[in-house]
Amino acid sequence: MTYPKRNWYVIASGDDVGSHPIARTVCGEPIVLFRTTTGVAVAMDDRCPHRGYPLSAGSLCGDEIQCGYHGLRFTQQGTCTWAPGQDRIPSRARVTPRPVAEVGPWVWIWTGDPAAPEFDRLPLIPWFADAGWAHVHGMEFLDARYGLLIDNLLDLSHETFLHGELIGTPEVAESPITTTIDDDLAVVHVSRRMASVECPNFYSGSTGLRSPIDRWQDIEYHAPGYYLLHVRVAPAGSQPDGLRDHPQAAHLKVLYAITPIDDHRTMDFWAVCRDFAIDDSELDTFIARSNRDVVLQDVDALNLIEARLGDTWEPAEVSLKIDSGGLAARRVLTDLIASERPTTTPVSVGSR
Amino acid sequence: MTYPKRNWYVIASGDDVGSHPIARTVCGEPIVLFRTTTGVAVAMDDRCPHRGYPLSAGSLCGDEIQCGYHGLRFTQQGTCTWAPGQDRIPSRARVTPRPVAEVGPWVWIWTGDPAAPEFDRLPLIPWFADAGWAHVHGMEFLDARYGLLIDNLLDLSHETFLHGELIGTPEVAESPITTTIDDDLAVVHVSRRMASVECPNFYSGSTGLRSPIDRWQDIEYHAPGYYLLHVRVAPAGSQPDGLRDHPQAAHLKVLYAITPIDDHRTMDFWAVCRDFAIDDSELDTFIARSNRDVVLQDVDALNLIEARLGDTWEPAEVSLKIDSGGLAARRVLTDLIASERPTTTPVSVGSR
Amino acid sequence: MTYPKRNWYVIASGDDVGSHPIARTVCGEPIVLFRTTTGVAVAMDDRCPHRGYPLSAGSLCGDEIQCGYHGLRFTQQGTCTWAPGQDRIPSRARVTPRPVAEVGPWVWIWTGDPAAPEFDRLPLIPWFADAGWAHVHGMEFLDARYGLLIDNLLDLSHETFLHGELIGTPEVAESPITTTIDDDLAVVHVSRRMASVECPNFYSGSTGLRSPIDRWQDIEYHAPGYYLLHVRVAPAGSQPDGLRDHPQAAHLKVLYAITPIDDHRTMDFWAVCRDFAIDDSELDTFIARSNRDVVLQDVDALNLIEARLGDTWEPAEVSLKIDSGGLAARRVLTDLIASERPTTTPVSVGSR
Repeated sequence: MTYPKRNWYVIASGDDVGSHPIARTVCGEPIVLFRTTTGVAVAMDDRCPHRGYPLSAGSLCGDEIQCGYHGLRFTQQGTCTWAPGQDRIPSRARVTPRPVAEVGPWVWIWTGDPAAPEFDRLPLIPWFADAGWAHVHGMEFLDARYGLLIDNLLDLSHETFLHGELIGTPEVAESPITTTIDDDLAVVHVSRRMASVECPNFYSGSTGLRSPIDRWQDIEYHAPGYYLLHVRVAPAGSQPDGLRDHPQAAHLKVLYAITPIDDHRTMDFWAVCRDFAIDDSELDTFIARSNRDVVLQDVDALNLIEARLGDTWEPAEVSLKIDSGGLAARRVLTDLIASERPTTTPVSVGSR
Repeated sequence: MTYPKRNWYVIASGDDVGSHPIARTVCGEPIVLFRTTTGVAVAMDDRCPHRGYPLSAGSLCGDEIQCGYHGLRFTQQGTCTWAPGQDRIPSRARVTPRPVAEVGPWVWIWTGDPAAPEFDRLPLIPWFADAGWAHVHGMEFLDARYGLLIDNLLDLSHETFLHGELIGTPEVAESPITTTIDDDLAVVHVSRRMASVECPNFYSGSTGLRSPIDRWQDIEYHAPGYYLLHVRVAPAGSQPDGLRDHPQAAHLKVLYAITPIDDHRTMDFWAVCRDFAIDDSELDTFIARSNRDVVLQDVDALNLIEARLGDTWEPAEVSLKIDSGGLAARRVLTDLIASERPTTTPVSVGSR
Repeated sequence: MTYPKRNWYVIASGDDVGSHPIARTVCGEPIVLFRTTTGVAVAMDDRCPHRGYPLSAGSLCGDEIQCGYHGLRFTQQGTCTWAPGQDRIPSRARVTPRPVAEVGPWVWIWTGDPAAPEFDRLPLIPWFADAGWAHVHGMEFLDARYGLLIDNLLDLSHETFLHGELIGTPEVAESPITTTIDDDLAVVHVSRRMASVECPNFYSGSTGLRSPIDRWQDIEYHAPGYYLLHVRVAPAGSQPDGLRDHPQAAHLKVLYAITPIDDHRTMDFWAVCRDFAIDDSELDTFIARSNRDVVLQDVDALNLIEARLGDTWEPAEVSLKIDSGGLAARRVLTDLIASERPTTTPVSVGSR
């Protein structure tokens, strides 16, 4: 396995990008990130063209980044404006700038041809900007290949076993799913609708609902790196009424951005958006802590699998019905890698 | 070097195998171990056939082991009895069970064909079961290939230098040895009989004997992984009288089970059996601590050699007379690896 | 890149070589060092020929080194004088002794043919022995190839950025240099003469001079591993008067010995000699601490570059005028490696 590069990946939370350069690696490429005095996030190859020192170990000089070793300075377009003991700057002393885009709390980077970013393929993620929604977010590093995280997220039956204390109940593992693939858009849909089931701690604690509830999980996986779980939890039997949902229904969008660091490491960005109690900062804390705990349980599990896989790419496996989503995602990814063809990631219409 | 697999190796102390699964690696293969409610030790491949999660990270569900990721359950025969969202379990969803046998404090695993364990080749080790004997035991991990431990144990002249404070005296290194090989049984015998020599701390502290003593060391090495040192210490001049030994003679069986983890790591199981003061628990502690100290000195020394060897398998060496046992063991092992022929490890008749 | 072996390298400070053997690795070869009762530093291959145990883990037995595993003893010429259980020592049981030479605080080792050390190629370093000079010294381990340290030392414009607090001022990066190569001697000279410039903390703190000063940096790099920076700092405008320098001028010799451990690690030996306040022990402390801080800043920077380089030997680079010294050094080194021809390192005549 490797990764498709003609794509956008989340590289950082916007919070982490400021006037001190930071280093990240995406798809095997070291990138330096910083924010200009006017607030623009900038990404460039994290390597001074002179002697290879990481620019992320340097500092900002106004809106230019200065190498910490010999002081070469580069604009955010990558042009060298100063070099020691030099009147004329060699034209090869350039750093490649990388297209970035901020969408809510996330900074995306285009890992394809830097000269041809496809901005129309950026996910819009309306809930980050909608005044009727609140969100919390975070990121964990994973010592596992990104494919294991995709497997994990596309098959939520594992919630029952790995996340029993937080979001798993027996019904999750038992309930059937429906899986559909949109090959043209490289999107996989997996839907699990549970009626009159137990309310897990995460949702009772956040929404106040009590068992039994109706619980919907509708996944959209936009290959390669954007995942969206539409959650509807509501008192059992309270179906949406045509255009309007039941007043006690709560909706959450559980988002993941899956970013390969290299063949064996991944950044696992997550955000949880909600349309209830949006000004409740204690609830922010509860949801952020709970979702981080879930993510850390996944991290531990996937790191264990990766450690056993080593350099094996196609381990012997036995697939079950629950894996239809994960298998679909693998197929879509394989096609994407094979063709590096453009995919379009439209605004999610969701299941709200 | 590699290891012969059609054999029994000690994989764990029985103490360590209980209702919480544990992970061990033997001959490069990850194994999960647990004990059923009826007390039977069970070993299986430590990998869920579904998505490769280590079963050792799961838990017991009655006498079945349940994967911690998606909840698949397996009997101790490796049959899958439950999988999420599945009425019919795929027949390929099986885990390979591994033959095990408990002999005293040790759990042995058969690393050959799981369907054809050769139980007649298990060492019987009578002193573990004999009411006239007491024993203590332990295990240390070694960051060195198992061949270095075999070299070490077959040539006890190193006691003088590496274990001078505990079991080595000048006479050990100075005394000649006799070495014989039983090629059919893949057993090497090395014998060193010392008359009227200094009594080292380990034996004065455990037996109360004082210098000078007669000290016998009779080694049996049963390739690949079982080693037995028959020790007789007695007042100088007190030869056994035909069938009966001198009343002040003390006998110890110092056992090692040498288990390759992989090409560069080893489990070093040890046990010390004695036929004196068998109800003395302070003596248990003294012997266990002293022998562990000896083992840790070996561990440090062999790890140093391994670190220098790296991937070298046949370093330039100069062999001495003291190496006749180690060289014989290497030849027997090489033959065993080459042929993977069955060897028979009979009950040791010993030199008691 | 690799390293020329027909050469002398500094392997240790003499302070570190005593009656307890120590282990060092030079050009990929493990070496044991110790000092005899008569005070002679001895170096040998750090491997017992019997079973490969590091001799550095053994101990001295008079002036012989004794293996800690089986007790073999070797003279400082590498002859085995004792082996356990052996009347006749096998002639192959020999350790190769390595030629060494102590020059001031440094112990040099000859890594070429042990039978043919070229003592005439040892640097003499007169300031270590001259009663008119004082010196301090130290060593840091570098997780970077030695070529990166040579690049670093041959281009002092980096002082302005990496060592701004200590020895760098804007003028260093701005001032032009002259570079000359003596191909026959494998010596590179780089000279930077700064007139009426700022006095950095290192020199104001050590000499008491105040800005503006005249500051001279005259480098001699003797490939592969000896580097000498002649420093003259003096009140601005105070040129040497023919044979005699200005009474307020201070002179320092900043020496580096660059020793490859292996392809990716280096020992960075340094010494600072001065011709002023030579009995001032507080000044010793100030200079030693300051120079060590400078070295540690280099260590951090070069380790970062090495981590990115991995196994790459010829990264894409853009060279500047300031790199003329470094590029010259690389060419001289490449020639040296290619030919392994003898080079002569004469006594430095310096610029004092």
